[in-house]
Amino acid sequence: MFNLFSLKGGLDNVQGFYCDGVNVGMKTNPANSGSSDVDGDVAFIRSDVLCDITARFTNNKFQASPIKHYQKYPKDFKTNFILLNSKNANAMTGEQGVKDIDNIFEELSKFQTLENPIMSSTGVIGYRLNQEKIISAFEKFDYDAKNSDKTARSIMTTDKFKKELSFRVELDDGGSFTIGAICKGAGMINPAMATMLCFIVTDADIPKDDMEELLTGATEGSFNRISVDGDTSTNDTIMLLSNRVSKAYNKEAFKEALNKITFELAMMILKDGEGANKLVAFEVKGAKSIEEAQRASMALSNSLLVKTALFGEDPNWGRIASTIGASGVECDESRLTIHYDNLLIYSDKQRELDKEREDRAFSIMKNSSFKVTCDLGLGEGEYISYGCDLSYEYVKINAEYRT
Amino acid sequence: MFNLFSLKGGLDNVQGFYCDGVNVGMKTNPANSGSSDVDGDVAFIRSDVLCDITARFTNNKFQASPIKHYQKYPKDFKTNFILLNSKNANAMTGEQGVKDIDNIFEELSKFQTLENPIMSSTGVIGYRLNQEKIISAFEKFDYDAKNSDKTARSIMTTDKFKKELSFRVELDDGGSFTIGAICKGAGMINPAMATMLCFIVTDADIPKDDMEELLTGATEGSFNRISVDGDTSTNDTIMLLSNRVSKAYNKEAFKEALNKITFELAMMILKDGEGANKLVAFEVKGAKSIEEAQRASMALSNSLLVKTALFGEDPNWGRIASTIGASGVECDESRLTIHYDNLLIYSDKQRELDKEREDRAFSIMKNSSFKVTCDLGLGEGEYISYGCDLSYEYVKINAEYRT
Repeated sequence: MFNLFSLKGGLDNVQGFYCDGVNVGMKTNPANSGSSDVDGDVAFIRSDVLCDITARFTNNKFQASPIKHYQKYPKDFKTNFILLNSKNANAMTGEQGVKDIDNIFEELSKFQTLENPIMSSTGVIGYRLNQEKIISAFEKFDYDAKNSDKTARSIMTTDKFKKELSFRVELDDGGSFTIGAICKGAGMINPAMATMLCFIVTDADIPKDDMEELLTGATEGSFNRISVDGDTSTNDTIMLLSNRVSKAYNKEAFKEALNKITFELAMMILKDGEGANKLVAFEVKGAKSIEEAQRASMALSNSLLVKTALFGEDPNWGRIASTIGASGVECDESRLTIHYDNLLIYSDKQRELDKEREDRAFSIMKNSSFKVTCDLGLGEGEYISYGCDLSYEYVKINAEYRT
Repeated sequence: MFNLFSLKGGLDNVQGFYCDGVNVGMKTNPANSGSSDVDGDVAFIRSDVLCDITARFTNNKFQASPIKHYQKYPKDFKTNFILLNSKNANAMTGEQGVKDIDNIFEELSKFQTLENPIMSSTGVIGYRLNQEKIISAFEKFDYDAKNSDKTARSIMTTDKFKKELSFRVELDDGGSFTIGAICKGAGMINPAMATMLCFIVTDADIPKDDMEELLTGATEGSFNRISVDGDTSTNDTIMLLSNRVSKAYNKEAFKEALNKITFELAMMILKDGEGANKLVAFEVKGAKSIEEAQRASMALSNSLLVKTALFGEDPNWGRIASTIGASGVECDESRLTIHYDNLLIYSDKQRELDKEREDRAFSIMKNSSFKVTCDLGLGEGEYISYGCDLSYEYVKINAEYRT
């Protein structure tokens, strides 16, 4: 059928796409990643050839200005340029926030031929962009660079590591195409994508309809299933661009590659979850319906008491049970079972933890990732979501974020 | 009409009620309050005369065994005894958990004449009660004591201070009655009462129907409006008992006293919110409906990002706006205004914080309590809820709670 090869780097491997990131003085501190460099704060992704584009945006009613700007383009528009910045979300900035983007693109058009250019921003809410600084990037950019590393670093905010990924897909008929992506996000992550930006580019010859369909499915299986703190930002964006340069395409192969990319990026976000040390899968099965399974699963990945118990490595299944009971789904304590990985930790017949099982539970909880499975024993509904622990570090990062 | 007098103490002031608390070795550490005493872990509240009782319980589907035990009594039953314990919630303990309560009361009946006795428990989920220890309290109790202080201390878990309150109501016709209450709760506090226990006793000659009606209203205006962490426990209980010994009653007066007691106790819980330093009122007005106002207000008091910004004393109104936008209510950034106390911090015409207003906002946020008012500018819906900040201490308390 086809083979998937994981490549080094993110956007660089995709034909016809170029990208670069520079620092214009908005970020002044060395990278969170611990390197002594100051990362970039303005970046771009562009294609030689006009691209089809599909995007998904935050459910937040106060969508940021770059999203409003994007939505002014006609349906099925094509684009050749995305401008990115960090440190300022350009959100809650009113009509002026959209005008500022137009002004910025007017300046950029002195350097590049722009076709329906798109902007995407992340950072603090409620302040106008520093246009002068952003515009100063335009003569610093190398427009023919393939510098995914700098681009990915330029959109980092509280992220502790950059996030990029790519795959080459080789088809049986000898054709091949490439998908690459960069992503940012560490907090304000909640079902419905939350503050994350993700840019996926491909040279596959993918029909526009497939782009829509496959991005929806990939998002549902990945970014919509993770939660760091249950907050949903004004700026969340996921974009898929295709320039069709490779002329090769296979729907199943593309779907698999896209799902892999979005799932792995989502897990990276969770591992980077502000101050998080543990990645936990919350599987709920045996629910009356998929909706109920989802509701219980998301309640678990969002619960503060569950998150702090994970941080404390405390095998306190009572908080798991209590959270399911509070989630509003149909449940029955005599039918419920709870497992940590393969260890049965609660059932009707085996309620209190004996010393041996408690010790085994402790050792599972010391792992950096594990699975909690709750079987409600009532039906066929299943869902899995992914969460992380809540540490002192989360509070510290978020108490200090703006100042 | 009537006069309300705040009294010292809680349950002691109410005629015909007796209470005491003792330590039987389940609590082994000195009080959280910093006193060198080890607080009690088993307590009782009883009345000489049979009482009418009204209760509200958690919405959690996994209701604890004491609640199941209570619900086995017929409608409109009367009682004369409530037994209380901390350190163990007797939740997720199955049918055995209810049987254990019956066994305990069989032992207690050797000491006291019991009429439909009630138990109420708080503590860790998933373990059977230590019956032997609880029963050992029965010969230690002073059944004729009026020891509200020890009773209130005996139900404390992560609470940092005991919570008790009482009022005497003097009517114009010369009659008077008394209401007294004790309460516990500091975490797992969420709309729908969450882990709190509250016992209110009165000697007022209140009709049973008024008890139901007024307790519902009082709960809605107090415990249902506070949030520490958005989690809802298995054990939440609020009970109102009346023995009618005073023969005096006035509905308006009783309502005012009951509302005052429940509101003040709810604020005490919030001030004690695990590790919390600030009490913040989140008022939403101008919403399309009361339901929408409530939804936005509760989203604010539950948001981790808002809570950590409060802890950081960061006047980051962007997180307030973003949380409203994410709550799903109808809103429009050009109509929204946000005030911190009386300081306008956001409006369509005044988006960026200038230095002077930022300084004023900083100084408001340094207060131990203040109000955030969001006017959506769309309708008549209003709601106010109460939250607290999220500190390192919260994470510490909850990472360590069980172990």
